[in-house]
Amino acid sequence: MTQNVYDNDEFFQNYGQLRRSLEGLDGAQEWPVIKNMLPELNGARVLDLGCGYGWFCRFARENGATNVVGIDVSEKMLARARETTSDPAIEYRRADLETVELEGMEYDLVYSSLAFHYIVNFGRLVEQIEQALIPRGYLVFSMEHPIMTAPVRQRWVKDAGGGKSWPVDHYSDEGPRSTDWLAEGVIKQHRTVATILNTLLRAGFTLTQVEEWRPTDEQTASWPDLAEGLIRPPFLLVAARN
Amino acid sequence: MTQNVYDNDEFFQNYGQLRRSLEGLDGAQEWPVIKNMLPELNGARVLDLGCGYGWFCRFARENGATNVVGIDVSEKMLARARETTSDPAIEYRRADLETVELEGMEYDLVYSSLAFHYIVNFGRLVEQIEQALIPRGYLVFSMEHPIMTAPVRQRWVKDAGGGKSWPVDHYSDEGPRSTDWLAEGVIKQHRTVATILNTLLRAGFTLTQVEEWRPTDEQTASWPDLAEGLIRPPFLLVAARN
Repeated sequence: MTQNVYDNDEFFQNYGQLRRSLEGLDGAQEWPVIKNMLPELNGARVLDLGCGYGWFCRFARENGATNVVGIDVSEKMLARARETTSDPAIEYRRADLETVELEGMEYDLVYSSLAFHYIVNFGRLVEQIEQALIPRGYLVFSMEHPIMTAPVRQRWVKDAGGGKSWPVDHYSDEGPRSTDWLAEGVIKQHRTVATILNTLLRAGFTLTQVEEWRPTDEQTASWPDLAEGLIRPPFLLVAARN
Repeated sequence: MTQNVYDNDEFFQNYGQLRRSLEGLDGAQEWPVIKNMLPELNGARVLDLGCGYGWFCRFARENGATNVVGIDVSEKMLARARETTSDPAIEYRRADLETVELEGMEYDLVYSSLAFHYIVNFGRLVEQIEQALIPRGYLVFSMEHPIMTAPVRQRWVKDAGGGKSWPVDHYSDEGPRSTDWLAEGVIKQHRTVATILNTLLRAGFTLTQVEEWRPTDEQTASWPDLAEGLIRPPFLLVAARN
């Protein structure tokens, strides 16, 4: 069972204050990059794993998707998604991505934003996704970058000259990491870049694009904190086809 | 023009003292992993880019390769390779991988060990390799891991508890890094994992395996220094087909 931290009151409230929660897709710094990794949405059947407030589900429909299913483990997230959606072609379902059954479905695109780093059994989920897609379907996802998740104690350090760095340790040691992000003791699952990519390859996917998100000059100009993304990448973005 | 640090007397002498120089392939900690990434060598035509002493060229022939070409920019390396090779089916050539012309050749396998992190124009070299291979040929290579090459000043740090970490900075800032490895001011080229993989994808390669080398328990037992590889991966290993 997933930790389901999104149903924790403190976490849910703090999550609601993030720019990506208030402004939707355009408030997510990595959105311009992952948007460019998407296939044609017109006429597509779309599955969104970890749909949260449903921003992407609605975007997909606005861009021509014929039907969209959004799955999330959090009741609170799904309640908010349903409140803000009036589109019968979008269906929200509650399910735990650790145990969800997706075989036999036929999607053109499976999308997932910043959910996979919570998953313990990533191999199982990738196999389910592969079976949810039509042949030559698309999987496009983002997750926290392994450089970000590796350290047992995640922190920035400053050197004498004021330069910031992100100390990496335990990179090869895959498994849970406890962080205090929006709430105390949020558990994320660290795995290496190699494991993530080889899991896709072994399930029969062909990789088409891999991105390590970094801010643009415009982003750092208007949002200086994002410059941290130049020091070490916060997100790994992958596009693949089965 | 490549820096050609291998023809620097101090570097060449120090390089000769490395375990991988004294013991050959079995003295290279990553060899068991990359060996398992190789295709069938029996009957293969093989090109080794940055062949050094020629250890891999001879290994390929001992395992059935019909002919092997080893390319290196260093006269000293090639002289040593020729001294220790008595096999007319192995040919050593001097060329700079920045400018080498490989089009029109027909190889089943292009192999390269720890040379690509010296290359400024990696995109050009990958395109040359793609044209050197037969359709569905193999490219298998190792290089220094981007986590390793990113920092402007590469170093370990210890925290108060004695734990070691590898501070990452300037990850997104691709370009030269000066290190004091075997000699002062050795220039290596940092690029991100995303750039390395997307360069291969854009040139028409299909990725088949990605590894971030880590030591085995046996290796750390007999060679304790290798445990550093558990903290952050020193090498990126990739297998691809065109």
